[in-house]
Amino acid sequence: MTLATAPMTDQEPPPSAAEPASEADRLARAALARLFEADDMAMGRLLDAYGSASATWAALLDTSSPLPPKVTESWRTAARVQQKEHPPERDLDAARRVGGRFVVPGDAEWPDDRLAPLALGAPSEPHVPIGLYLRGPLNLFEATRRAIAIVGTRASTDYGETVACDFATSLADHDWTIVSGLAYGVDGAAHKGAFAVGGSTIAVVATGFDVTYPAGHKHLLDRLVSDGLIVTEKPPGTGATRLRFLNRNRVIAALADATVVVEMDVRSGARNTLKHARRLRRPVMAVPGPIDSPTSLGCHLEIRRGDAVMVTSASEVAEVAGRIGEDLAAEPVVPPDPRDLLPTQALQLLDAFPAQRSADLDALVEASRLPREEVERLLPPLTQAGFVEPASGGHRLTEQGRA
Amino acid sequence: MTLATAPMTDQEPPPSAAEPASEADRLARAALARLFEADDMAMGRLLDAYGSASATWAALLDTSSPLPPKVTESWRTAARVQQKEHPPERDLDAARRVGGRFVVPGDAEWPDDRLAPLALGAPSEPHVPIGLYLRGPLNLFEATRRAIAIVGTRASTDYGETVACDFATSLADHDWTIVSGLAYGVDGAAHKGAFAVGGSTIAVVATGFDVTYPAGHKHLLDRLVSDGLIVTEKPPGTGATRLRFLNRNRVIAALADATVVVEMDVRSGARNTLKHARRLRRPVMAVPGPIDSPTSLGCHLEIRRGDAVMVTSASEVAEVAGRIGEDLAAEPVVPPDPRDLLPTQALQLLDAFPAQRSADLDALVEASRLPREEVERLLPPLTQAGFVEPASGGHRLTEQGRA
Repeated sequence: MTLATAPMTDQEPPPSAAEPASEADRLARAALARLFEADDMAMGRLLDAYGSASATWAALLDTSSPLPPKVTESWRTAARVQQKEHPPERDLDAARRVGGRFVVPGDAEWPDDRLAPLALGAPSEPHVPIGLYLRGPLNLFEATRRAIAIVGTRASTDYGETVACDFATSLADHDWTIVSGLAYGVDGAAHKGAFAVGGSTIAVVATGFDVTYPAGHKHLLDRLVSDGLIVTEKPPGTGATRLRFLNRNRVIAALADATVVVEMDVRSGARNTLKHARRLRRPVMAVPGPIDSPTSLGCHLEIRRGDAVMVTSASEVAEVAGRIGEDLAAEPVVPPDPRDLLPTQALQLLDAFPAQRSADLDALVEASRLPREEVERLLPPLTQAGFVEPASGGHRLTEQGRA
Repeated sequence: MTLATAPMTDQEPPPSAAEPASEADRLARAALARLFEADDMAMGRLLDAYGSASATWAALLDTSSPLPPKVTESWRTAARVQQKEHPPERDLDAARRVGGRFVVPGDAEWPDDRLAPLALGAPSEPHVPIGLYLRGPLNLFEATRRAIAIVGTRASTDYGETVACDFATSLADHDWTIVSGLAYGVDGAAHKGAFAVGGSTIAVVATGFDVTYPAGHKHLLDRLVSDGLIVTEKPPGTGATRLRFLNRNRVIAALADATVVVEMDVRSGARNTLKHARRLRRPVMAVPGPIDSPTSLGCHLEIRRGDAVMVTSASEVAEVAGRIGEDLAAEPVVPPDPRDLLPTQALQLLDAFPAQRSADLDALVEASRLPREEVERLLPPLTQAGFVEPASGGHRLTEQGRA
């Protein structure tokens, strides 16, 4: 959508992922990240009209620039107050002070292949993040080359937490980055599982990256700061709102090759994350559980509807998420019951043996009623397979043969 | 397969399901049921050659009749000994003495539509039962008009037994007959679940119907004799062999519209039952469970391979087993979170409210940065939906709005 009445003279070419961002663009993006929620339609309309972040921010501050329809003047007032009281340099400084950074399209760390698909077209659809605040030693671009999102309910059971932790441990051990949301329950278990093997894990949060939320995950936040990565669209100091959680979910889905939900009741916020993953045409997986467990109900519903692939092991997750030809899950090794391989007549011959004693050829032919040549033909392979053994007076069942 | 060298003069037309069985046919079938195991190739070759049970039995007893290739003379010896020492009348008498009966094709109680598909063509494939010994008040034909087989491992968990029992109870309550195998574990739980609501249940066993196997299920056997039905291919007094269990499984699958496995390790005999159900092109279902439970592993494998449909409730089982248009499973009722229905701007407006105080229109426009007319437009529906309420000085959040 372009705004025909907008002045085109101020426009600079929109920065592409290929060319480095200008300092003006970075500052404008920081300003917009503070002013707007990620999927605000007013921001979408302004960016569509002015074509770049810096032109948009300049137009908001310049009272002579027209605003697109449905963008209220109060945004202009708010922008001017923000520019005066909290210019974007302050957010970037605050980020730097705690060792964080603000990355934008064009930066080497910006995973454009992951995030660009969020620009789904309609202005009411979730937008590509205007920028991302990062905190932690992982490089976002590198860490998202192989990444799996593990999500689920905060009200998880021991089962769900064990599964989330085990999957994360095993996937991290196979060089997958674990993406989750730092919440209680499944999220926390996933991060911990990755750390258990010194793996890479990313928490996408709805607050500023310096806000401890939830409070009980302070230790996990500290660990992410020192060994992982915290990602957020909001500047330092920002609190959580419901809207920010919903917007955050789309970033989780976007940063990962695939998303797996471990436990989810039918109302869980994880449903929203899966919806975003499907919109992005990324694989969605769900873990089954006891059918009488409310926190598995949502997973079963996704599987039954064909909206999610059922996965029962980390290697299956990797197979679904992986590139074709890599990461193939081993089928569970089923040591075949040797009897499964026996033809009916061999089973019939085994049934003809006395339980404890030996039997000669005549007795076996008589008891099995198989042709004599059939009995003669079957005895050597049954002996070799360990079902019968030679004994005085013919053959007898081995322990395996009696089993 | 027909035997060109066989004498055709003795042949009578094979009894069809439509015409009543002759007494000679019934006696010959009883004799063959005692002499042969259900899927014995020698019996298959004899029946193919002589065309009817009575002609087959007569040919076995008459030393001047040629035997088909690969059918050993020892069958003839065994048949003559059996005819002398244990003529079929004795089995039919023994069955009647305990209140049982022997039904054959052509009898009103013979469920030909269920069993005839077992004649799959190749002589090495499982055959249609030569006859069935029945004991119990249920009518086999009537009881198999709507029938579901519930099968699984003997080494079931509490979870599996609860599921098997609950499914059987609910299905029996909706006029489905439960078919299973009287074994410990899932089988026993299924029969008990059906009895819990006075439902119909059929046990297909590998022994004679007067043999208590397994010993711990004597009470269940007694209950089936008085209120259900025991079905077997073998005459009274017959013990169990491995081969008979395998043959029994095909009858379980054949008598039911569909088969559901509740718990199964990767080696469970229930796999064999599912294989028969698939051969018969009857729906196969599996119940998920905890991914770390070995007795759910086999179920998950069937689902993952696409060999079984995942089911998580009795109504889903009925839907899969049911005739089109009947027995539709209700989707789990998900009471929608009212917020799920709100557009982004409404969420934005709710986020703009102070937590406890009321706010007037100006404050809301300022805080939400939505156009004034948008705020005015959104307040009435948000009030009606119970998120906000009028208060002195404007509107404030309700408890639901703060949630």
